[in-house]
Amino acid sequence: MGLGVVGSGVVEVLARHGELIARRTGVSLRVVRALVRKPRRRRVGHAAHVPLTTDPAAVLGAKDIDVVVELMGGIEPARAYVLRALRAGQPVVTANKALLAAHGPQVFRVSAATGSDIYFEAAVAGGVPIIRSLREAMISDRINEVVGILNGTSNYILDRMQSGADYAGALAEAQRLGYAEADPTLDVSGRDTADKLAILVQLAFGKVVRPAQIATIGITLMTRELQADAERLGYSVKLLGIARRHDNGLEVRVQPTLIPRRHSLSSVRGAHNAILLQSDALGEMLYQGLGAGSLPTGSAVVADLIEAGRNLRAGASLRVELRADARSPALLPRSAASCAHYLRLVVAERPGVLAAITHVLADAGVSLSAVFQDQHSGNGKQKVPVTLVTHACKMGQMDRALGRLRRLAALQGPVQRVAIEGELT
Amino acid sequence: MGLGVVGSGVVEVLARHGELIARRTGVSLRVVRALVRKPRRRRVGHAAHVPLTTDPAAVLGAKDIDVVVELMGGIEPARAYVLRALRAGQPVVTANKALLAAHGPQVFRVSAATGSDIYFEAAVAGGVPIIRSLREAMISDRINEVVGILNGTSNYILDRMQSGADYAGALAEAQRLGYAEADPTLDVSGRDTADKLAILVQLAFGKVVRPAQIATIGITLMTRELQADAERLGYSVKLLGIARRHDNGLEVRVQPTLIPRRHSLSSVRGAHNAILLQSDALGEMLYQGLGAGSLPTGSAVVADLIEAGRNLRAGASLRVELRADARSPALLPRSAASCAHYLRLVVAERPGVLAAITHVLADAGVSLSAVFQDQHSGNGKQKVPVTLVTHACKMGQMDRALGRLRRLAALQGPVQRVAIEGELT
Repeated sequence: MGLGVVGSGVVEVLARHGELIARRTGVSLRVVRALVRKPRRRRVGHAAHVPLTTDPAAVLGAKDIDVVVELMGGIEPARAYVLRALRAGQPVVTANKALLAAHGPQVFRVSAATGSDIYFEAAVAGGVPIIRSLREAMISDRINEVVGILNGTSNYILDRMQSGADYAGALAEAQRLGYAEADPTLDVSGRDTADKLAILVQLAFGKVVRPAQIATIGITLMTRELQADAERLGYSVKLLGIARRHDNGLEVRVQPTLIPRRHSLSSVRGAHNAILLQSDALGEMLYQGLGAGSLPTGSAVVADLIEAGRNLRAGASLRVELRADARSPALLPRSAASCAHYLRLVVAERPGVLAAITHVLADAGVSLSAVFQDQHSGNGKQKVPVTLVTHACKMGQMDRALGRLRRLAALQGPVQRVAIEGELT
Repeated sequence: MGLGVVGSGVVEVLARHGELIARRTGVSLRVVRALVRKPRRRRVGHAAHVPLTTDPAAVLGAKDIDVVVELMGGIEPARAYVLRALRAGQPVVTANKALLAAHGPQVFRVSAATGSDIYFEAAVAGGVPIIRSLREAMISDRINEVVGILNGTSNYILDRMQSGADYAGALAEAQRLGYAEADPTLDVSGRDTADKLAILVQLAFGKVVRPAQIATIGITLMTRELQADAERLGYSVKLLGIARRHDNGLEVRVQPTLIPRRHSLSSVRGAHNAILLQSDALGEMLYQGLGAGSLPTGSAVVADLIEAGRNLRAGASLRVELRADARSPALLPRSAASCAHYLRLVVAERPGVLAAITHVLADAGVSLSAVFQDQHSGNGKQKVPVTLVTHACKMGQMDRALGRLRRLAALQGPVQRVAIEGELT
């Protein structure tokens, strides 16, 4: 279902490697037909030879189709079709992260009830086998932390900004290269990252979290000045999805984050994705690879198809319960999360301003690890930037401190605030 | 077979998570008995309750044992036992890299002939699923490059040296922490890395390479001076196993290597392992995690056991041909490999020395990208270090140039030579 870039990529891989797949795995994969909206559209490569249909009933529950591959994207009608396939006894392979993020619990419930498996390796970081690793860790390990660069577009933009580009220029470049959509909102707002993080959280912690419940900040307010500042302090800026188990619950958030240059996520370049897991048995583990693109996503779909085929032939099933675990941890409110912060203010150049700022922070119980004020110009310039790095404090504390900082008379513009993650590795 | 650190770890994981494994995978795993050499040895934890035997026949071909786990290590009798199990129809899970490196082709041949699967995720970088990824890539992808930090002990030592320790001190520390054996030769000589690389090469390129065929240089000649020099030039020193497909054959080597600090292998710290793959479909992919230790290795063994159990129940098999591919690339001689070099010489402080050195290199067709000579002391000091960075040249060219450099009258000690890998990511 869906014969766009990824669908055509899957057709291509199967056409080129189908024989080898059959010889090596015993699973013979044949594209029976494709459900499309526009059958007249011109298609190239092997996709041009796939029989097309516009009738969902020709796929869903069709007796000659063993496995359904959903690559339409979007919520509806993808959700209805996937559920129909599962109920008809057809396992489903999907790359649809938005669907799983919004309706994962329902899809997993129907999958468990019907015994039809749902495979979705391609939905998160297509180029790395993170879904399977988490499925397996569920079995005999305990995940404590998932920290990921889950959106290649944002990482590309931040990477370019680190090299000196400004936000608008980096975005335009990403669009020119095909990394970013004409409307990049989903990517740069952090919503795509939150969607993927919701899926990972369900697998890693057995916890159903709706993307809307995840405190999410995108990269749209990042500036070249802030990046330069971060660089000077020894940090890179990355858009991170963070999920972390605490004694009293689960911390889940998406936001631009400063990480030390020695951190293993710091070297993740361009449109790559990366996911850092911390578990009882394996300690820290990092996966890094391409997150999107027709070939990585197509490969993940094909790997799922092979697994689905093997399981169908053997009468086995994934048998991994993806329903919410009753003992799953509670979701902590964002205000309870604790981290160090980077703050950047532009203030009027007058005596006592720094004292006023540090006083507000001290009052809120936020302690400082460093303060930088650019040297007074002495040339009558009115505004100077002040950079502060705090020790770890609760988000709620910082919220309160910022509320008061924003009322300072000397303030000459918005206050920039970015979380800092420590030396995780 | 074998109830040491890893074997006890496996017993522990099964005791703690066996019920969950059975519930989630449908595979019930029970330790029937353990073959040990010293049954009287004191054992702790759940390992103390495992029935022991000293008779191989009580395990190999025993009707009440479905899967044999080989954790004895060493070549013999491990090889004979593994072959006996496979021939008796018992799938084997092993963590024995030395066995597979030396006798992989025989083991894989017997596995294919008998239909008894051999699982060895734990043999290379236990904490990351590299073996399965390569098995799968064999199916519908083409690997072009495998570059790995495969020995945690060496990486730990180099990492400590980067932080200022000298070789002997770093090694002693690694031994104190249990990362290095009392006799660390296998690790620091690069032989352990070559063993693992041989296994990866077989999977990635369908090519049988014996470890002895791999040009191997260990880390024993690394010095604090060299590290400081590398640091100054913007490089980290890592012991890399490199396998790379070229038009005319396969380049395979193990050696300490300078890599730029932005390289994704540069941030691999402590006893971690990491493997960078480059393939047609996935582009670059990086796995990083703990390479050894009872829990990571034990987890890999348990993951293999679950896979073996699922396949046994379903009557399926891995069906991946691990025999040499007839069309596999030829092994290129080491002299044909091409890379940039770092050279460090100590020479007598006299006019014309630098000219003599650069003349020798130019004669051999080696071009220089940088030359550094520490400032003349002017205090009568006789020896000064000279550091050179070359552009890429054939190893053979560099061998010849070094042969001539070593005959220079001004030379005051050994010439240090380290390969440089470019900006891979």
